[in-house]
Amino acid sequence: MEHSMDSYSGEVAWRFGATNPALEVARAHSIRWLLYRIYDCLNKNDSRPMAPLGFGDPSAFECFRTAAATEDAIVAAACSGKHNSYPPVAGSTDAFSAVASYLSRDLPYDISPSDIVFTAGCNHAIETMMAVLATPGANVLLPRPGYPMYEVYAAFHGLEFRHFDLLPEKEWEVDLKGVEAFADDNTVAMVIISPNNPSGSVYSYEHLAKIAETARKLGIMVISDEVQFVFGSKPFIPMGVFGETVPVVTLGGISKRWMVPGYRFGWIAVTDPKGVLRKNNVFESIVTYRGITADPAAPIQGAIPQIIAITDKSFFAKAIGLMRGAAELCYRKLQDIDCITCSHKPEGAMSVMVKLDIAYLDGIDDDIDFCCKLATEESVVICPGSGLRMKNWLRITFAVDLLLLDDALERLKSFCLRHAKQNTKA
Amino acid sequence: MEHSMDSYSGEVAWRFGATNPALEVARAHSIRWLLYRIYDCLNKNDSRPMAPLGFGDPSAFECFRTAAATEDAIVAAACSGKHNSYPPVAGSTDAFSAVASYLSRDLPYDISPSDIVFTAGCNHAIETMMAVLATPGANVLLPRPGYPMYEVYAAFHGLEFRHFDLLPEKEWEVDLKGVEAFADDNTVAMVIISPNNPSGSVYSYEHLAKIAETARKLGIMVISDEVQFVFGSKPFIPMGVFGETVPVVTLGGISKRWMVPGYRFGWIAVTDPKGVLRKNNVFESIVTYRGITADPAAPIQGAIPQIIAITDKSFFAKAIGLMRGAAELCYRKLQDIDCITCSHKPEGAMSVMVKLDIAYLDGIDDDIDFCCKLATEESVVICPGSGLRMKNWLRITFAVDLLLLDDALERLKSFCLRHAKQNTKA
Ligand SMILES: Cc1ncc(COP(=O)(O)O)c(C=O)c1O
Ligand SMILES: Cc1ncc(COP(=O)(O)O)c(C=O)c1O
Repeated sequence: MEHSMDSYSGEVAWRFGATNPALEVARAHSIRWLLYRIYDCLNKNDSRPMAPLGFGDPSAFECFRTAAATEDAIVAAACSGKHNSYPPVAGSTDAFSAVASYLSRDLPYDISPSDIVFTAGCNHAIETMMAVLATPGANVLLPRPGYPMYEVYAAFHGLEFRHFDLLPEKEWEVDLKGVEAFADDNTVAMVIISPNNPSGSVYSYEHLAKIAETARKLGIMVISDEVQFVFGSKPFIPMGVFGETVPVVTLGGISKRWMVPGYRFGWIAVTDPKGVLRKNNVFESIVTYRGITADPAAPIQGAIPQIIAITDKSFFAKAIGLMRGAAELCYRKLQDIDCITCSHKPEGAMSVMVKLDIAYLDGIDDDIDFCCKLATEESVVICPGSGLRMKNWLRITFAVDLLLLDDALERLKSFCLRHAKQNTKA
Repeated sequence: MEHSMDSYSGEVAWRFGATNPALEVARAHSIRWLLYRIYDCLNKNDSRPMAPLGFGDPSAFECFRTAAATEDAIVAAACSGKHNSYPPVAGSTDAFSAVASYLSRDLPYDISPSDIVFTAGCNHAIETMMAVLATPGANVLLPRPGYPMYEVYAAFHGLEFRHFDLLPEKEWEVDLKGVEAFADDNTVAMVIISPNNPSGSVYSYEHLAKIAETARKLGIMVISDEVQFVFGSKPFIPMGVFGETVPVVTLGGISKRWMVPGYRFGWIAVTDPKGVLRKNNVFESIVTYRGITADPAAPIQGAIPQIIAITDKSFFAKAIGLMRGAAELCYRKLQDIDCITCSHKPEGAMSVMVKLDIAYLDGIDDDIDFCCKLATEESVVICPGSGLRMKNWLRITFAVDLLLLDDALERLKSFCLRHAKQNTKA
């Protein structure tokens, strides 16, 4: 059993040179690596605090720390000794009942615990839907700009996708004409995100009704991503309200509203009172896929009834107030920056999508170049719109501590002024 | 926006009739649904406690409850407010360091925190490896009997698999001639499981050395599933000991040893001191796949250093003692049952693989029929060997409360006696 070290690497022709090619395709759609690139541009000698406006995770900031009751719920579950075992995939435990009644609050009908499966975060819910719908030839319609994990999972599982536009001039509503134009006989679903990441817009009842009508006409289901929360004047309307018109699969979770993305807990609920998705085996396939993939941790599931029960208490009032303040600050400050147009004040979610007018700037090639140089010079990280198929746009996350946000937007402004073309300088 | 209920179902030709066909293929390899079938046979009027010997999850029994220190670790992590955010995919946090030094204890070299990625349980580690290796035309070699999730994930991701045998007459060692016979130019990996599920055997240093030599000769990596733990006289030898001979990917986690499968925490470690897997991009692909799939929950990751630190304390002594006692009881009692042959006393893991001699029985067609009738008549659930490609074998899990185990084996014996053929009755 002794090998000389020298002979080792030379003599063996290892056969595992290649890995799954779908991974590279999927990876290309993810903004994770694009963001790493921006982070790599940071100047380590800059003593100012780095401002992470590149993606939404406020939970690290003390002001956005989850409610004590949320943490207490985990403590109680962990100490009970009842949540150490493999959790059920679907079922009638207290956690399923809690989520079912939470979701039913805003619906004209009740959904049952057995209409729900739990996932390891809302991303896993997205993954499940893209995997389930990936039949040869099928396609789904995704919003542009959107949340890139849809493209990542669709690409990985070999599900074709096409983009319809969201219209910035119409508060980022869905371009329904585009939806009709891109759909064909093989289209099985369209995805909507409201409250919307990346634009912060919230769809009205009327707009959702039109989406439902369009989907129904096309014979496709609506996958409605509702993981984000509202803080503006527009009420949140779940797409499931139109479940009688069109079968809706609602994706959600506790990551955003409860500020615990690290808990990795989400759900898929079939908000489909007519049972179309059951009849078509879609729900069964969802359960099958979930049954072979990751479960959310049992102590988190055990804590869910208590976590859900604290909804609407002072924690939410505070979190919503903070997020509204951050959105307003962001919107206001962006108005002062010449090369950036922010036409719509966010009313939900954690970011805003703004247009970058590269013509105002000197020596900046495009949005990616802008973000790289901004990171280097100002220690501010922003996500280039190119990652969301919107070249020369930017996605700016405002879900950070307010003082840091204020400071970061000042730095963004100085950066833009410094790089402004002579003749356009303020 | 009003629809008459009547017109609804009639008029729309929904386009999502089919779902991903790979799901059905994958599902067919899972024993989950076979076990559901057995559970469905239970007689609800039987007042005796149901004995779940179908799969290994002792954590629900008070005697196998995890150490208080494990639960305390979760409490501390949850209350720290530091583990609410998205966790890193790979990195140099305390959790990675803790797992790296834990794994290095038994190795002739040190592995670094950056050789490890975390997964949502060991199943997710298996899923990751099968997904990463799924290139067109490639194949992997899997043990028969084995742990069916390998087949499930390989099938789902379109990775061809072939089976080599484990040899019951040789303490379930790998049939290395079979490995050589089934490998071809497209074979990229072989999987070994030691401590072995389902047989309870533990591979010796000498046998692992031979496996390493064979894999090296074939130019394939070894995926070594080490999630189970030993309790017998044979020491546990990690396959990574042979990392200089052949690149080894070690899969593990805390589910079994710490009795917390519900925590959904596992890992993939490249125990490959020569760096062959890095050079061949395998590790990078593992990180990519993990980067787009489920993270283990952050509070669990936060608790890992403390959980790992309690290794070797009294909890393990007790758990190992209990498991050894259960294995011995099981082995001894099975010797008294004519139609069952148990040739090898388990020295690790949580189950034993036994041969069912159907010729001794009256009116029992095969292992599945045996398990169905046993569930109905005796409220004892056992996994039919057919689920593991071993027709007329049984996988019996002994990881339950000892009194219940004793009782269940008595019931199994009565069942066998009651169904024994006249001329073979004791
Ligand atoms: C629209 C949308 N869907 C899904 C997710 C992922 O949620 P989770 O953290 O629960 O996986 C996010 C996170 O930013 C999101 O914005
Ligand atoms: C050999 C083997 N691998 C993997 C697993 C799954 O482990 P986990 O619960 O961490 O997903 C098991 C569970 O029984 C097992 O026996």
